[in-house]
Amino acid sequence: MSETVFTYASPALKFGAGAAAEIGHDLVRMGARRVLLVTDRGVAATGHPARIAEQVAAYGVSVTTYDGTHVEPTDASLDEAIAFARDAGPFDAILAVGGGSSIDTAKAVNLLTTNPGELMDYINAPVGRAQPPSQPLLPLVAVPTTTGTGAESTTICVLDVLSLHVKTGISHPALRPVMAVVDPTLTMTQPTLVTAAAGMDILCHALESYTARWYADFAAKTPEQRVPYCGANPIADLWSEKALGLLAGAFREAVRDGGDAGAREQMALAATFAGLGFGNAGVHIPHANAYPIAGRVRDYRPEGYPDEPMVPHGMAVSLTAPEAFRFTFDAAPERHLHAARLLDPSAGDGPDALPTVLTTLMRDIGIPSGLAEIGYGEADVPDLVAGALQQQRLLATAPRSPTEEDLAAVFRRSMEHW
Amino acid sequence: MSETVFTYASPALKFGAGAAAEIGHDLVRMGARRVLLVTDRGVAATGHPARIAEQVAAYGVSVTTYDGTHVEPTDASLDEAIAFARDAGPFDAILAVGGGSSIDTAKAVNLLTTNPGELMDYINAPVGRAQPPSQPLLPLVAVPTTTGTGAESTTICVLDVLSLHVKTGISHPALRPVMAVVDPTLTMTQPTLVTAAAGMDILCHALESYTARWYADFAAKTPEQRVPYCGANPIADLWSEKALGLLAGAFREAVRDGGDAGAREQMALAATFAGLGFGNAGVHIPHANAYPIAGRVRDYRPEGYPDEPMVPHGMAVSLTAPEAFRFTFDAAPERHLHAARLLDPSAGDGPDALPTVLTTLMRDIGIPSGLAEIGYGEADVPDLVAGALQQQRLLATAPRSPTEEDLAAVFRRSMEHW
Repeated sequence: MSETVFTYASPALKFGAGAAAEIGHDLVRMGARRVLLVTDRGVAATGHPARIAEQVAAYGVSVTTYDGTHVEPTDASLDEAIAFARDAGPFDAILAVGGGSSIDTAKAVNLLTTNPGELMDYINAPVGRAQPPSQPLLPLVAVPTTTGTGAESTTICVLDVLSLHVKTGISHPALRPVMAVVDPTLTMTQPTLVTAAAGMDILCHALESYTARWYADFAAKTPEQRVPYCGANPIADLWSEKALGLLAGAFREAVRDGGDAGAREQMALAATFAGLGFGNAGVHIPHANAYPIAGRVRDYRPEGYPDEPMVPHGMAVSLTAPEAFRFTFDAAPERHLHAARLLDPSAGDGPDALPTVLTTLMRDIGIPSGLAEIGYGEADVPDLVAGALQQQRLLATAPRSPTEEDLAAVFRRSMEHW
Repeated sequence: MSETVFTYASPALKFGAGAAAEIGHDLVRMGARRVLLVTDRGVAATGHPARIAEQVAAYGVSVTTYDGTHVEPTDASLDEAIAFARDAGPFDAILAVGGGSSIDTAKAVNLLTTNPGELMDYINAPVGRAQPPSQPLLPLVAVPTTTGTGAESTTICVLDVLSLHVKTGISHPALRPVMAVVDPTLTMTQPTLVTAAAGMDILCHALESYTARWYADFAAKTPEQRVPYCGANPIADLWSEKALGLLAGAFREAVRDGGDAGAREQMALAATFAGLGFGNAGVHIPHANAYPIAGRVRDYRPEGYPDEPMVPHGMAVSLTAPEAFRFTFDAAPERHLHAARLLDPSAGDGPDALPTVLTTLMRDIGIPSGLAEIGYGEADVPDLVAGALQQQRLLATAPRSPTEEDLAAVFRRSMEHW
């Protein structure tokens, strides 16, 4: 029997210039007196977290700041944050200020300071034991300072398990922030390559949600089997289409001139919209591939990020996206073409349309030309495929299920896009 | 200084055929053991509430049913429901099954069984004392059986204060249901005129939200001054536009053939979308006018409703809508025209376009031809205007502020639309 039901949930949202100055009011309304602010050192250096902490304190709320978030969190970095919070707490609300890394770290801290056990108890199977939380979590307010991840809307915390060399996640509806405060003025400090990479993450959220398997094409689930990600559906479509339209208007300009407040506002709105879409529909092949691409990095060091080997999440997602969408084209041609035309009204026809729009954009905004440029070669393909195949939850959301050979072809064709 | 911030909130949503069979699971997940089911006798006669109560009970949750909801609630009917709940409780969750009347009654019961005082303490000023609740409310799950009110998405409970002959409301974010379960199969039992009137309510929600004053055209508010309804904004626009598109495709067919499951599903989706839009943007002149039109009814008895004098809410809203939108046209011509074309791609140009689309539709689906047909005449205009002027919160959301004379002209021109 086919599925007939889809679900939708979202945090409450406060959007606009100045929204971040009001967080103290919102926290007090939630009954908070002692708040843990989670951020990272790079974001702390912009001054936003300290200013927000001061504004919150003015409402009579005590704020403890943890700025040790690791960009691209690991099990070790999350354990450190959890230990800090257990030691400095108890708290009655958590406030994340930063990119996806800070927001995801705050989700893990929220889970492990309110529930017993350790990370592995809650990490997705087969890596972890995938237990649901037994106790209610604290209210989590998320304040994104990059326009990309959509982490403020989602139920997932992404992490590297260092000992296993695997990127995986913890996913449960209880992890979703209760409120997202999106203040575009906070995003003006993003370096150019961060804007480009995080923007590609927005774009792939929208494209993967929009081309995901339709919710009614899955087998019917019992209520106990339902997950937050239920495939493309009429509500997620709405958000994805609108996000694509906003990106078409603002993405190149936000990268070209980071000081363009109008473009920054449109990008912030696009990130929020795409987050609300993929936070309910789900993502598929490009995100599955991004896990091993980021997890097996050797020595690529991107500008504008901490000086260590890393592939920023949005960049990792984008690098196989053109070929992934060439592979999925046949499963839903009209959706791929409609998406391509929302991004570029002059897009062509057929399986090449969307890949061409994507590679043209990636080239314009300074994304590497393919996996080769960030240090991968033919010999890495089997390893990359093995890593992607571990992301069965994501691959099951693809409109067309890729075999091992299909994935290998996608990786191989993604070595040099131009 | 102009406003720069808008807010958005919504209940979690479960949508689709069969969704209502899973409510027990969702209530258990919220920690509920003793639930009050609020409905009315007409809805109870369809068998839906009893079946849902049984399905919930199968999850080990005890269910007490109150079927005494008054269609178009009054202070007296709400007091009766509250007294019942105080007597039969305590409960740890509330489940509303029915139209806007049942859902709004459940909101009032939720407020007054968790908070001290009486209705008048919480009713909007100047009629009541407009206090915010001091205590947290119970989780409220709303299951609409009519496709119209959007009450499952909103923060307001509408009621008649009998002694004052005034329709007013209680509005607070805490009143918003935490979850909406929209199961289109429950709406198949709506009588024809209920489908028509409730559908006009959907349509006016979408049109009024879409033409509401833009959020950034209000004066800047402090966080304490923010209300759930913040004017037209990029998110509410998205919902309103999509709702108009769905109505264009399904409204006439759902009225013509109530057994058309596809049309019913599209109408249920349109009602949900429009509710998510106006639940954040707000409504204006047609809804303000609806209060006195419904509140001062003499002896109009519509088919398919309880046998007593009443003007169904959606009908009351629609009867001055064409003239209201003729009046507001100049404030945002492109929005009025875009809305008209979403409803009918062949719509004309100028201030007549939207009114013509509306009156053609109203005539097709059996809405009365104007205020005269439901018993009002020229002599009633001053009273109707006085009633509308009491709805300052709604009138302030209009894109162009109507004077007493403007409102009188709208009412006068709405006596006979054809």
